[in-house]
Amino acid sequence: MEKMSRRSFSNKVSQGVAGTVFLGSLPLNCAMGPAARSQQSLGIALVGLGSYSTNQLAPALEQTQHCHLAGIVTGTPSKARTWMQKYDIEESHVYNYETFDQIANDASVDAVYVVLPNSMHAEYAIRAAQAGKHVICEKPMGISVAECDAIIEACRKAGVKLGMGYRLHSEPYTQEIKRLVREKTFGDVRYVMGEAAYISRGNPDQWRLNKALSGGGALMNMGVYAVQSCIYGCGKNPVAVSAQEFSTRPDYFKDTDETILAQLTFPGGIVGSVMTSHNANANRLYASCDSGWFELNPANNYGPLSGRTSSGPIQFPHESQQKLQMDDFALHVLEGAPNRAPGEMGKRDMIIVEAIYRSIREGGRTIPLDIPQDYGFGG
Amino acid sequence: MEKMSRRSFSNKVSQGVAGTVFLGSLPLNCAMGPAARSQQSLGIALVGLGSYSTNQLAPALEQTQHCHLAGIVTGTPSKARTWMQKYDIEESHVYNYETFDQIANDASVDAVYVVLPNSMHAEYAIRAAQAGKHVICEKPMGISVAECDAIIEACRKAGVKLGMGYRLHSEPYTQEIKRLVREKTFGDVRYVMGEAAYISRGNPDQWRLNKALSGGGALMNMGVYAVQSCIYGCGKNPVAVSAQEFSTRPDYFKDTDETILAQLTFPGGIVGSVMTSHNANANRLYASCDSGWFELNPANNYGPLSGRTSSGPIQFPHESQQKLQMDDFALHVLEGAPNRAPGEMGKRDMIIVEAIYRSIREGGRTIPLDIPQDYGFGG
Repeated sequence: MEKMSRRSFSNKVSQGVAGTVFLGSLPLNCAMGPAARSQQSLGIALVGLGSYSTNQLAPALEQTQHCHLAGIVTGTPSKARTWMQKYDIEESHVYNYETFDQIANDASVDAVYVVLPNSMHAEYAIRAAQAGKHVICEKPMGISVAECDAIIEACRKAGVKLGMGYRLHSEPYTQEIKRLVREKTFGDVRYVMGEAAYISRGNPDQWRLNKALSGGGALMNMGVYAVQSCIYGCGKNPVAVSAQEFSTRPDYFKDTDETILAQLTFPGGIVGSVMTSHNANANRLYASCDSGWFELNPANNYGPLSGRTSSGPIQFPHESQQKLQMDDFALHVLEGAPNRAPGEMGKRDMIIVEAIYRSIREGGRTIPLDIPQDYGFGG
Repeated sequence: MEKMSRRSFSNKVSQGVAGTVFLGSLPLNCAMGPAARSQQSLGIALVGLGSYSTNQLAPALEQTQHCHLAGIVTGTPSKARTWMQKYDIEESHVYNYETFDQIANDASVDAVYVVLPNSMHAEYAIRAAQAGKHVICEKPMGISVAECDAIIEACRKAGVKLGMGYRLHSEPYTQEIKRLVREKTFGDVRYVMGEAAYISRGNPDQWRLNKALSGGGALMNMGVYAVQSCIYGCGKNPVAVSAQEFSTRPDYFKDTDETILAQLTFPGGIVGSVMTSHNANANRLYASCDSGWFELNPANNYGPLSGRTSSGPIQFPHESQQKLQMDDFALHVLEGAPNRAPGEMGKRDMIIVEAIYRSIREGGRTIPLDIPQDYGFGG
């Protein structure tokens, strides 16, 4: 954990000026810090070099202040070569799925970020924990509650930290929503809705359309955002859920859900409405409170997000959400900062996902949920 | 129908300049027409002088170009006196609920606008038709499909026109949405949602909270707007519906529904999501299409409405929706212009409302609907 890359060093310098400095939209050479702060940087290995790692996480790791790219795990030798060159990674920090467990001996790697198809999250999160590495698990946490339990238990047993790849909990619009809810700025929330959807027309052989690999369709991929919007949009866990599934392109969505609507009941009768789809575009969080309302639209894409309330706009400078998320996890590991998105959050959402699928199988019947009210919230 | 009030006369003058002249935001003395056009004006009697008549319809009838306030029906003598004075109405055009049928002999009254509590719509719409008067019926059309059938049949038998008080079909934002759908500006609609809700905290003895008078709560009062948003937001009639009811203030909403979510399936699998409540504020139409989206927010209040699409904003000058609506109905009667919101539209919506209540009673089960695809659309 003592490694400090050149890049993270320069970030430290810039941060030395006055604590938290907003760097996201500034070129690094604009930051003028007189002295470097001695600080650790978390070495992260990415497991799975698909488009999310390639286009989001790796670029974000060039901006992070408290963590850096320390290794890669891929089954594709050509990808390994490309990444080694691009990110200056030595061969000793490059693994494939056969050699993965040797990562235990790699002191440069402090944490493993599992960015594989959903059905492989549990296996690699558990193997990472068993290798003594902290774990970031991309969402959804797994493809069943049982898998979530197994991951949480493996991390507990190994004494490593576990965080979910729920980037929104580290970005300011979502944090502002959580503040409005926590401080009851507009009184109690009465209705909250989350839409999380995008039209999928890509390669029909992609793993997301293969239930064995994805565990499900729109709900697994995007629906968790809509469910989360409702949860942090009212600050409570749901006590019941009903749901319906809709299909218009069964030849494309052969195996996975295309569109799902779900209805959440929260304590006190707060109503939550969830929409997720891979056959439409929608991206909104809206909540109506006793004395006002708030809205994010878009609410859950990579940003810039946009927000407004009954009192005026919500506005923050845009930064890479993945950068903020990984830095938050690094500070959790390095300095004991709050875990923004703990494993329990991923498990809680999977409990709701399973209940949604069950309601659909049972004709839209309302399924009671037995989630403790304080379970699964991040710091 | 030959009566022409001073007000409508001056409007005709202004209209003489160049056909359709936008008058709504101009004081009348700004309109300079050289000659009056000989034209009829429809005499409308308002039945029920509650807040909607008082605050919306009567002021609108001072702006209309093709109709005017010709009579009133009220059970409250003090209201009658106030209105007679304020709107210069002679005693011979003032009725109460006992003398109502004598309106048949009042040549000044061409049409009767039923603005009573929902459970009284059918009786007075039918009596108006039997008196030989055209009928505008406030929404919801009645409190059952059977009532809607009876109204439609009475108007057919009497040979009078029947229109619903669905003001939005006459205002430009809604018409623009219908155009975008009709012309497939953004391709086919895949997902459409309607939110129609406002927080009710008023007099607990109001008729809206009394099911015998209202027939139901949020769904009857506002839900029809959300259902309508989905219908004109995709240009089709739904083929199935499921729904759920939520309650948090049962002591206030003793007798009527507080919040309802409903899910509509349209031909081709288009998904419609309906939210209505008297315990939250929400007012939105959103649709995602194959190659874009459109949104109104607010979508169904008295305006000004606000809209945007994936190509840019929707913007029209604000006019009284009720003025536009009553003028459209007048032109339908006087000149055979299209009926924007025919009785069949009111009946169609009541079929859906009844199915929503049935789904709720049956635990959220999906209820098939058997509405012809061309049924209930206005011109």
